[in-house]
Amino acid sequence: MKSSQRLTRRQLTATAGTAAGGAVLATLAGPAGARARAPLAAPEAVPAAGRSTADWQTCLTVARALLVLDEDDQPLVPRYRKVLLDGGLPRAATKPKKVLVLGAGAAGMVAAHLLREAGHEVTVVEANGNRAGGRIKTFRTGGHENAEQPFADPRQYAEAGAMRIPGSHPLVIGLVDRLGIERRPFRYVDTDEDGTPRHRTWIRVNGIRTRRADYARNPQAVNRSFGVPRKYENVPAADIVRQALDPVRDEYSTVGADGVRRNKAMPALLEGWARVVQRFGDWSMYRFLTEHAKLDERTVDLIGTLENMTSRLPLSFMHSFISASLISPGTAFYELTGGTAVLADALLGQVRDAVRFDRRVTRIETRDEGPAVRIDTVSEGRDGTVVREEFTGDAAIVTIPFSGLRHVQISPQLSYGKRRAVCEVHYDSATKVLLEFSRRWWEMGESDWRRELEAMEPGLYDRYRTGRVPNDGRLLGGHPSVPRGHLTEAQRTHYAANAWVSRDQPEAAEVIGGGSVTDNPNRFMFHPSHPVPGSDGGVVLASYSWADDARRWDAYDDEARYALALRGMQEVYGQRLEVFFTGVGRTQSWQRDPYAYGEASVLLPGQHTEIFPEMRTAEGPLHFAGCHTSLKPAWIEGALESAVRAALEVHGGH
Amino acid sequence: MKSSQRLTRRQLTATAGTAAGGAVLATLAGPAGARARAPLAAPEAVPAAGRSTADWQTCLTVARALLVLDEDDQPLVPRYRKVLLDGGLPRAATKPKKVLVLGAGAAGMVAAHLLREAGHEVTVVEANGNRAGGRIKTFRTGGHENAEQPFADPRQYAEAGAMRIPGSHPLVIGLVDRLGIERRPFRYVDTDEDGTPRHRTWIRVNGIRTRRADYARNPQAVNRSFGVPRKYENVPAADIVRQALDPVRDEYSTVGADGVRRNKAMPALLEGWARVVQRFGDWSMYRFLTEHAKLDERTVDLIGTLENMTSRLPLSFMHSFISASLISPGTAFYELTGGTAVLADALLGQVRDAVRFDRRVTRIETRDEGPAVRIDTVSEGRDGTVVREEFTGDAAIVTIPFSGLRHVQISPQLSYGKRRAVCEVHYDSATKVLLEFSRRWWEMGESDWRRELEAMEPGLYDRYRTGRVPNDGRLLGGHPSVPRGHLTEAQRTHYAANAWVSRDQPEAAEVIGGGSVTDNPNRFMFHPSHPVPGSDGGVVLASYSWADDARRWDAYDDEARYALALRGMQEVYGQRLEVFFTGVGRTQSWQRDPYAYGEASVLLPGQHTEIFPEMRTAEGPLHFAGCHTSLKPAWIEGALESAVRAALEVHGGH
Repeated sequence: MKSSQRLTRRQLTATAGTAAGGAVLATLAGPAGARARAPLAAPEAVPAAGRSTADWQTCLTVARALLVLDEDDQPLVPRYRKVLLDGGLPRAATKPKKVLVLGAGAAGMVAAHLLREAGHEVTVVEANGNRAGGRIKTFRTGGHENAEQPFADPRQYAEAGAMRIPGSHPLVIGLVDRLGIERRPFRYVDTDEDGTPRHRTWIRVNGIRTRRADYARNPQAVNRSFGVPRKYENVPAADIVRQALDPVRDEYSTVGADGVRRNKAMPALLEGWARVVQRFGDWSMYRFLTEHAKLDERTVDLIGTLENMTSRLPLSFMHSFISASLISPGTAFYELTGGTAVLADALLGQVRDAVRFDRRVTRIETRDEGPAVRIDTVSEGRDGTVVREEFTGDAAIVTIPFSGLRHVQISPQLSYGKRRAVCEVHYDSATKVLLEFSRRWWEMGESDWRRELEAMEPGLYDRYRTGRVPNDGRLLGGHPSVPRGHLTEAQRTHYAANAWVSRDQPEAAEVIGGGSVTDNPNRFMFHPSHPVPGSDGGVVLASYSWADDARRWDAYDDEARYALALRGMQEVYGQRLEVFFTGVGRTQSWQRDPYAYGEASVLLPGQHTEIFPEMRTAEGPLHFAGCHTSLKPAWIEGALESAVRAALEVHGGH
Repeated sequence: MKSSQRLTRRQLTATAGTAAGGAVLATLAGPAGARARAPLAAPEAVPAAGRSTADWQTCLTVARALLVLDEDDQPLVPRYRKVLLDGGLPRAATKPKKVLVLGAGAAGMVAAHLLREAGHEVTVVEANGNRAGGRIKTFRTGGHENAEQPFADPRQYAEAGAMRIPGSHPLVIGLVDRLGIERRPFRYVDTDEDGTPRHRTWIRVNGIRTRRADYARNPQAVNRSFGVPRKYENVPAADIVRQALDPVRDEYSTVGADGVRRNKAMPALLEGWARVVQRFGDWSMYRFLTEHAKLDERTVDLIGTLENMTSRLPLSFMHSFISASLISPGTAFYELTGGTAVLADALLGQVRDAVRFDRRVTRIETRDEGPAVRIDTVSEGRDGTVVREEFTGDAAIVTIPFSGLRHVQISPQLSYGKRRAVCEVHYDSATKVLLEFSRRWWEMGESDWRRELEAMEPGLYDRYRTGRVPNDGRLLGGHPSVPRGHLTEAQRTHYAANAWVSRDQPEAAEVIGGGSVTDNPNRFMFHPSHPVPGSDGGVVLASYSWADDARRWDAYDDEARYALALRGMQEVYGQRLEVFFTGVGRTQSWQRDPYAYGEASVLLPGQHTEIFPEMRTAEGPLHFAGCHTSLKPAWIEGALESAVRAALEVHGGH
């Protein structure tokens, strides 16, 4: 565990004082069997200098974490499922412990519940005043954090955080089902009424607007607008990405005669992933695309814009590659009826009496004598009184994101590796801007538009179609269905100042669910997959962005974002949607959130091998959980994997 | 100018459909003379794949911008100095224009003044309600933005932004002197009273504390605490960095017999820099250090921590290299008496009647008929009324940071290259936390400490020395020199919850100016170089951090940062400094600033060649200025270069 005493391969190489590190690497590269396999590319094309300097064992460790295997290469998920869904932790071999859990997100609450069921005494300490769930957060009436209702229609709700659950994530799907929570399809792709994918949402880039289905059939106009070389003019962006990544996927999977890609059998699967880590662990996605896939900068612009890669180009190749590879294009997504927070509600329901809200951890002390762990907390003093409270236990599970742990004093200090992880591990930005409309206009056809606009004012439909409606905001929220009282004159002026000036009005979107992509600041837009019962309106995710795209929003105060987000939508869908805007928005910047400190751990080049393995190791009585200790950061599944692992560590007997 | 119509070299390579891009590259790589020179490293160690895919001409363009040369390789600075300091713009050849300047930072105000002096009619539009200067910002009594005084002592002031001016920046030094502003040494290194550098400030890392001078003499303990290989155990971090970068510097400079490094003569200087761009333009600093300099990860940790490289490792090698190379270790720095804002005051004084405050630009339109430029603005409505105002002109100088320009609607749309720059150019985070003390305790010796503490309470001096003072905050601000009324009970509780628990009390710092470095979240601390007349106290820059280091702070609200920053200082200087804390702090997160949108354009790998050249080109009547259009981002000098360039562009005759 004392990694400071373990020579890394870089050190060995450096200590040997040899410039020809390759020779040293070869001798350290692990089992002969693994080395004998054909490398990822022809040897002359794989300079030793470009390869990760991590040793083969570290690459295997990362690959095991990625595939959720134990040290004997056995799958852990079946065991985790059994603990989580069927019987809990094994019968305690040791006496019950007093356990502190730091953080009431999914990882903390699940670990706490498992340990309590196994007879341990658990206290969950949470910095939030009244909300559990961490980055599971739903803006909803009666939800915590917002005393008032978040939208003009009290029935409306929308996701600030986790919004879709892949069907390929067995722990969270199993947990949701076992808790009796209703799930239904999350329409990542827009559909018609019977659920058939239609791909009618928009691509709006370089001043050109086209439906996704049209782009897939004929990508030339869009691709040319980026100036891609001729050979890519007729290749859809998603196919270019696939072509670039497929050779890497061939390391651990094969395409059958049926055209379906399937994982290789063990141990080829594990070793294939380890080779990917060894080859590209130190690379950014930018380097991969330009240097390995040999894409020109214009093609990188194209796929970056349409496939949401631009803002994460300087970050780890591995992160984006894992995300793209563990979730296949055919993956089904689900959402939870009533909002993802119903899962947080259910988890909280199991441990509510153990949770101490409004207690921010400021210090963690571990001791050899007396209680092994002592923590100091302070309340945020919302009611005017600031309270300090101390908690002690035999063990603690720390689920605080490492970006937040940076400001928690820990004594004696953690191991060198853990300290560097706390200093260095990158957390990405992600920002959402949500806007409420009194009608689900994206589901309307032209005849619906005609009816609604003509009811407002005869001739209005045609005036919007021909760009003759003033863009001074006078028709903002003008439809009779919009409840009064949410739009002030000041807001109206702000909206007018920012309104989209172009008068081209595309035809009605007429979609259910799905979303559009644009090169304007909004970047990605998502329509709700399902109506809210009893409401004709809906809340649109008007902008969802990451990294530098998100930081462009984060400089603005919450209130300033809505006018900008509305304009971005108008650029894509046309001016007329303004009549249904209720004047109400909600926004979430995860980077600015004082309890989240970022969206998730999205690692930098080299951090998978240098930092990640250190993030999950226990340090004496301190255990570490949370999605950042898995290789599914930002996914509930990763939080649950970590919760079961940490609970087993504390309980013993794994 | 229409870069979308120009084939880039990547496109040519891709169009040719060849995998052996190297051959194509060779034929495109520019003048034979340049190619004939010895490459940066032995050819077999320089894979074509790692080299920038930008063409030689682009590399030369970047090198010219860096050296501030015109297209004929003639130095521009003497001409810029003449315009700025001695005579203004050349006699107008054309009739006076109506010019809009967007942004009242240094670039905008200087350009506006030059153009007005030359007879043009200028309006400066500024989003801030009442403050000019941009990222020149001083927290001071009577300063703008803060109606109230920022510190307990009304005489105290401190820098939120620009705080030091290199003597090697001729435009800003010349301007300061010509405006009659008093400048004095900024003590980047701590000194004794007669100004002799002492290097007595602290390095506090991995639980070890040592004076900088002691580290320079014997770096072994600190270096071992990072686990560096034996060959680096006795090499100070700065020397390791120098050894890594010197071979790159050899491209454009040579070390004489006297040991002094001097630039090569032209054109070798230019071509040397262009080769550096060609070789490393696509590289991150992380890649350079690991792959080219072949440093192991522990040594990267060491130099990253001590030399402030860690947080910018994923960013462009070029940025950090330029910063490290254009300012030599011996560079003298200056500060302005009264705060850097006195420069902003003086610049504003020249153009005050032309500045419209509280006007945020939301739209820019260019037209072929009528006024060439029309802009829409909106007030932020501080007084309750939100006002829209339109301005028109024959030309505009846009100094808005590109991160903010992202949310400004521009029609017709800008060129492809400029649009991508607005989307993609990276702006870094930088955050400062300032704390006020009633005494300049860092200047005190042990006898001063004894006197001051004994005066508070007999025996207190020894109790602090032996770690027997309770760390519950009861002595926070306890010295009689601390004015009452700034510390509430709630704050006291927060400070206590976060106070540093370790009781080791190092000897008195006893320094003037300079600063300490730590691996705790504060990272870099700076003491004021000079006392504020009439005040026994001082404001310390308790934390100055960049990139991910800064984002760890940015998640916290302003008020929450002070207790954390105080703790970080206590870890370095010991607990006893608490008695002088007035309870007052100020903090500036440039990433969260709604008018700055980031600290500065710190480019990503590849952006110097792909994006930077596009950032400064005019687009019809729109001209672009601001430090982001220079290769001195974040420096006033870069803003001034751009101001003169843009003024010349608008004025004509350059």
